[in-house]
Amino acid sequence: MRLLFIGDIIGRPGRDVVTSELPRLRDLLKTDFVIANAENAAGGFGLTRLVADELFSAGVDCITTGNHWADQREILSFIDDEDRILRPRNYPTGVPGKGAGLYETRSGQHVLVLNLMGRVFMDALDDPFAAAEAELGACPLGVAADAVVLDIHAEASSEKMAMAHFCDGRASLVVGTHTHIPTADAQILPGGTAYQSDAGGCCDYDSVIGMEKYEPVQRFIRKMHGGRFSPASGPATLCGVFVETNARGLAVRVEPVRVGGRLKQSIPEV
Amino acid sequence: MRLLFIGDIIGRPGRDVVTSELPRLRDLLKTDFVIANAENAAGGFGLTRLVADELFSAGVDCITTGNHWADQREILSFIDDEDRILRPRNYPTGVPGKGAGLYETRSGQHVLVLNLMGRVFMDALDDPFAAAEAELGACPLGVAADAVVLDIHAEASSEKMAMAHFCDGRASLVVGTHTHIPTADAQILPGGTAYQSDAGGCCDYDSVIGMEKYEPVQRFIRKMHGGRFSPASGPATLCGVFVETNARGLAVRVEPVRVGGRLKQSIPEV
Amino acid sequence: MRLLFIGDIIGRPGRDVVTSELPRLRDLLKTDFVIANAENAAGGFGLTRLVADELFSAGVDCITTGNHWADQREILSFIDDEDRILRPRNYPTGVPGKGAGLYETRSGQHVLVLNLMGRVFMDALDDPFAAAEAELGACPLGVAADAVVLDIHAEASSEKMAMAHFCDGRASLVVGTHTHIPTADAQILPGGTAYQSDAGGCCDYDSVIGMEKYEPVQRFIRKMHGGRFSPASGPATLCGVFVETNARGLAVRVEPVRVGGRLKQSIPEV
Amino acid sequence: MRLLFIGDIIGRPGRDVVTSELPRLRDLLKTDFVIANAENAAGGFGLTRLVADELFSAGVDCITTGNHWADQREILSFIDDEDRILRPRNYPTGVPGKGAGLYETRSGQHVLVLNLMGRVFMDALDDPFAAAEAELGACPLGVAADAVVLDIHAEASSEKMAMAHFCDGRASLVVGTHTHIPTADAQILPGGTAYQSDAGGCCDYDSVIGMEKYEPVQRFIRKMHGGRFSPASGPATLCGVFVETNARGLAVRVEPVRVGGRLKQSIPEV
Ligand SMILES: [Fe+2]
Ligand SMILES: [Fe+2]
Ligand SMILES: [Fe+2]
Ligand SMILES: [Fe+2]
Ligand SMILES: [Fe+2]
Ligand SMILES: [Fe+2]
Ligand SMILES: [Fe+2]
Ligand SMILES: [Fe+2]
Repeated sequence: MRLLFIGDIIGRPGRDVVTSELPRLRDLLKTDFVIANAENAAGGFGLTRLVADELFSAGVDCITTGNHWADQREILSFIDDEDRILRPRNYPTGVPGKGAGLYETRSGQHVLVLNLMGRVFMDALDDPFAAAEAELGACPLGVAADAVVLDIHAEASSEKMAMAHFCDGRASLVVGTHTHIPTADAQILPGGTAYQSDAGGCCDYDSVIGMEKYEPVQRFIRKMHGGRFSPASGPATLCGVFVETNARGLAVRVEPVRVGGRLKQSIPEV
Repeated sequence: MRLLFIGDIIGRPGRDVVTSELPRLRDLLKTDFVIANAENAAGGFGLTRLVADELFSAGVDCITTGNHWADQREILSFIDDEDRILRPRNYPTGVPGKGAGLYETRSGQHVLVLNLMGRVFMDALDDPFAAAEAELGACPLGVAADAVVLDIHAEASSEKMAMAHFCDGRASLVVGTHTHIPTADAQILPGGTAYQSDAGGCCDYDSVIGMEKYEPVQRFIRKMHGGRFSPASGPATLCGVFVETNARGLAVRVEPVRVGGRLKQSIPEV
Repeated sequence: MRLLFIGDIIGRPGRDVVTSELPRLRDLLKTDFVIANAENAAGGFGLTRLVADELFSAGVDCITTGNHWADQREILSFIDDEDRILRPRNYPTGVPGKGAGLYETRSGQHVLVLNLMGRVFMDALDDPFAAAEAELGACPLGVAADAVVLDIHAEASSEKMAMAHFCDGRASLVVGTHTHIPTADAQILPGGTAYQSDAGGCCDYDSVIGMEKYEPVQRFIRKMHGGRFSPASGPATLCGVFVETNARGLAVRVEPVRVGGRLKQSIPEV
Repeated sequence: MRLLFIGDIIGRPGRDVVTSELPRLRDLLKTDFVIANAENAAGGFGLTRLVADELFSAGVDCITTGNHWADQREILSFIDDEDRILRPRNYPTGVPGKGAGLYETRSGQHVLVLNLMGRVFMDALDDPFAAAEAELGACPLGVAADAVVLDIHAEASSEKMAMAHFCDGRASLVVGTHTHIPTADAQILPGGTAYQSDAGGCCDYDSVIGMEKYEPVQRFIRKMHGGRFSPASGPATLCGVFVETNARGLAVRVEPVRVGGRLKQSIPEV
């Protein structure tokens, strides 16, 4: 199977690069399934119905999120009726939405997508390792799922790598999100799980993690809030990770994807 | 000028890849000056005299550090006599060592190296932005220094990018360290400063940020300390950033360097 | 019922004031049950078999702990065989020890003791609110337990107060530990649960939270580790909270206890 | 000299108890100078001109603040013209306002008030210990000031106690604010400085640190924002610390003050 995971889409510039580039990428990469983290897709904070539909129309099959998932309160009204949108699974019981979904591709294969949030330097949620254990046990790779993708939305590189090793051999891809910066450490771990510490953001990189730079720089300098944060408006780079799996659902290839904007371009040849 | 910045060297495997690859890289890249972050060079924690000398012998011209700089107490006995080793400048007044140095290359050019530590999710030090302002003002690029390199040792991508924009046009290179993962966002900012969010670690990447994976994974799972951390012992990847500057000290080229080990190789052609 | 809860006992000075004063206090206060937090009882860090026995001999009926519970690895060898020692319940499944116990007093009444750890500014454990819900539901006050005492070992006053309100009417006493400073906010909440934000430490208060002051002050000033922390050796104050409950297990009286050392003395009259 | 320090005044209920009780307390305690922390005085967040004037009219001589000082942007327009309002001194250079003031009492004595913010579990500001050193050196107790009061607005009890010892003998009173809970550890340190870890909030204590309890409890349970925080509206307790100094400005007496509301009352006899 060929999978594309797209990192945090940030505001209008992020959506623009996804909607303009994804159709072509789906063809070029012959993808079976496309996942995108859209926690920042609506104005930089959260996700709305309209924005989600824009991404689905562009070819996203499943949306993951993170700490900003509910920044737009509107999502609470539709997330329970929308199977294709996940929020981190390790929120308390009773919170709207769900953290894992088993999806069928056009060719009839099954992809388990699991969305977890790390706890180092993040808000305190329930144990993401125990949650991973539960979900991977309930839907084993190569048995109930043809592919398993885990979006570990986390700050610390240590927690992301630990999660990847914890799942090694049980997931097709463990990929980090949240820092909005792509890492250059794509690799296949010894057990066959592909890994990249962060998929990177879909945003203008002449910015502070996708936001217009003036206000964040001022906050660092003055330690006071001035105005609001808004997405930087220059041309964005679509950042993501491309994975090919074998019959057992393990990775045989992993490569970064970077298209558009200021960063060095990277398009896998398929 | 051609500059090579090497990220956190972690223990024996990190030193091995540096000592074996750096001499060749210096030739290939025709470097005028080589800087390496060595806060984890001695067994994964801190720096000793012996280890520092090993790195200088291999071709490192200047060593920067970070939050682990004093993990080996031995450094306190020699850092004030060793001009080539820096610790983050924003430690309190009176702490041994210094955070900036102006060095002369073989060809007689001057490189200012500035070592700062971020404060987001890190120990509380003095303001790194104010410290940058002071040092850049005291030794202006193109006037007192032919090149200026700033190692911002920090956790949060936001703080690193903010620092880069704050220094844009006043430094040749602003590069992050500390996460031990190379980022894929090398770029030249509008003002002419080269930037990469993290240079990456020099370590075995079948690990948790360079450490043998068993113990860190266990700590995440059990929330208890078991044994000690020690550097993962497989083949390491040398990770760094290569920059070329113009007559005014601004960057005309920036490229990642990755040599050896598991990560995708990257050697700039010069 | 009359209950005495004693806050974090810190090293030899803390144990000394407890062993010398507790027998008298038990008589004076006519206590039915005495609980003490002993996470710092062994040299300031953790708990050993010998130290636990010293406290049990002095009249402690049940020991609670906190983030330092396993600082002395020895505890892992005996905690599963010692019913009277609790560690925070919200550690991951599989960790040795337990977080709640139902104890019988000499007069045949039953006391549920629940030990939880907060997550604000603390290590990330599982949800203490969900854990409280589970335990209070499994052993309801006035039904399965004549009294319920909850030690919420936490940093933030907000989390402690929130926990108290969450349990109001379902516990006899919710008391904080961990800051090593007694608070002056003892009160009975509207639902009948007694509350004090922190019981305070049993330690020498000419110190930094019970530790010899020189080294901690130096660390704040220099941001470097010097020597080790050791308990301040002057006369300690025993700090705790005294509660009387009615037939339904709710509090009819709550008062601070402070005996010995530098702090203003407070001994409830019974 | 007789000094009264009043802890964080939280919204209308906090202001009400101060305006109704302070005039009487000033008489009873024969105070020479009254300081109050008012960072939460305007609706629970920040300070306005109107609110500050209400407090000055009630008998407050000097206002200190903390991390919430600029929550109401209005303060930026008047803080530079209002000598009696301080913000934490260790904000970056260039931020409006100041962190220390030397005030003259009716009887012609001089009181140095110093407002600092801790850094443990707080936003990263500049070193409060270095700032204390600078201010205490510039205006020595017993020489340039008849009394010195330091409000250390901080979360961690360790940092507050370390600051107190650091200033011991150089200040009349070091008192903590920010947790909104009064501590019961008032004492005179060996060098003659009075100390209490937290003055406590002026608020309704049937609350979560002064706020209506429903919303904060929900946030702990659900890890999502629901509505806004607003001050709990029941009768508030005025919390503070009373100090008497000798001719050298050192403390000869320190006692907690608690008037009104749910907490145990404490009014020093003078
Ligand atoms: Fe994001
Ligand atoms: Fe995020
Ligand atoms: Fe490092
Ligand atoms: Fe580091
Ligand atoms: Fe403790
Ligand atoms: Fe603790
Ligand atoms: Fe406050
Ligand atoms: Fe505050």
